[in-house]
Amino acid sequence: MKLYNYFRSSASFRVRIALELKGLGYGYVPVHLAKGEQKQPGFTQVSAEGLVPVLELDGGQRLTQSMAIIEYLDEAHPQPPLLPADAAGRARVRALAQIIACEIHPLNNLRVLKYLVHELKAGDSAKNAWYQHWVRLGLQSYEAQLAAHPSPFSHGSTPTLADCCLVPQIFNAQRFDCDLAGLPRTMAAFDACMQLGAFQKAQPSACPDFEA
Amino acid sequence: MKLYNYFRSSASFRVRIALELKGLGYGYVPVHLAKGEQKQPGFTQVSAEGLVPVLELDGGQRLTQSMAIIEYLDEAHPQPPLLPADAAGRARVRALAQIIACEIHPLNNLRVLKYLVHELKAGDSAKNAWYQHWVRLGLQSYEAQLAAHPSPFSHGSTPTLADCCLVPQIFNAQRFDCDLAGLPRTMAAFDACMQLGAFQKAQPSACPDFEA
Repeated sequence: MKLYNYFRSSASFRVRIALELKGLGYGYVPVHLAKGEQKQPGFTQVSAEGLVPVLELDGGQRLTQSMAIIEYLDEAHPQPPLLPADAAGRARVRALAQIIACEIHPLNNLRVLKYLVHELKAGDSAKNAWYQHWVRLGLQSYEAQLAAHPSPFSHGSTPTLADCCLVPQIFNAQRFDCDLAGLPRTMAAFDACMQLGAFQKAQPSACPDFEA
Repeated sequence: MKLYNYFRSSASFRVRIALELKGLGYGYVPVHLAKGEQKQPGFTQVSAEGLVPVLELDGGQRLTQSMAIIEYLDEAHPQPPLLPADAAGRARVRALAQIIACEIHPLNNLRVLKYLVHELKAGDSAKNAWYQHWVRLGLQSYEAQLAAHPSPFSHGSTPTLADCCLVPQIFNAQRFDCDLAGLPRTMAAFDACMQLGAFQKAQPSACPDFEA
């Protein structure tokens, strides 16, 4: 397998975590988003959308969208499971993942921030306020869900799809100086994940294309 | 089952389609988003986040996030299936759904448009340009995926999770005068869906809380 990705991309980071948790080896193909490599022919032949991550399977098939890729990995390589065995648990884990992937991250990714600055003429402080607003709102929802059913990770005693999404979001939040006070369950789940080698190996600073 | 939802909410519409495709009866509980009912105590006791849809199961459990709800319905009520039988097909359908649910809709929902207007002081034309930009970009991605593997619906010969997400997005796009030219496969899938009673019964104008 080959993963087209970028060390800083939060959606790429989710998939790297899942691959590491499953113990699956993969070729790391860097696509430098900040330099616009996703819009150059080399990559648009891989992804017409110019989005990372793309997971290329050994048969050549290319999978897109991080949550869909992780669900695929969980079906093709069931151990260790990244979704609970019961339907209600799966619904909860997917909903947690979607708080991050549908409520927070889409508003704060690079192309959206660029639109704010270039098209809406937002200054640095307005851009940062936007970023922090959606992070805070989303993580408060996440915290409310976790507080209702406390557990060591986001759901249960092992990492799930939800944690694959949470951890990159917290990395982003820290980078943009977001307020993480009052989120004890969320930060405890983050800390529990970061104790694990899989999360450490997947983090941006461990990537071959990392830049400080 | 009870569905807390709003006729105009695109994420609610997705779940209504799935319920109709499965032939499942449900109680319709309207939450008037434009009047702010989602922030009033009656509903914040149901959803701390103040987001619709929420599907309340007969046992009292409440499910959130439209894609997670639809996956649950597909597991609990497998016929007719809303995901293909093969893992690669499921990955494709989920990725299509996520183009809508992670790339387009989060940028254009009501609370985001309100932020643009109230915090970033965007005027009507800037707000509409923002809306149309993300719809166009996302639907072009969707079209590229569909053109690569043409079929009557978004994937295969029956409606899937992807169509549950696509149809409400096209309704929104039409409402905001988005350019839908050059999307022949996407619009053919939309038209195929709208031939079906399930999609017609789920549409905003068929909802008990509909307002013209």
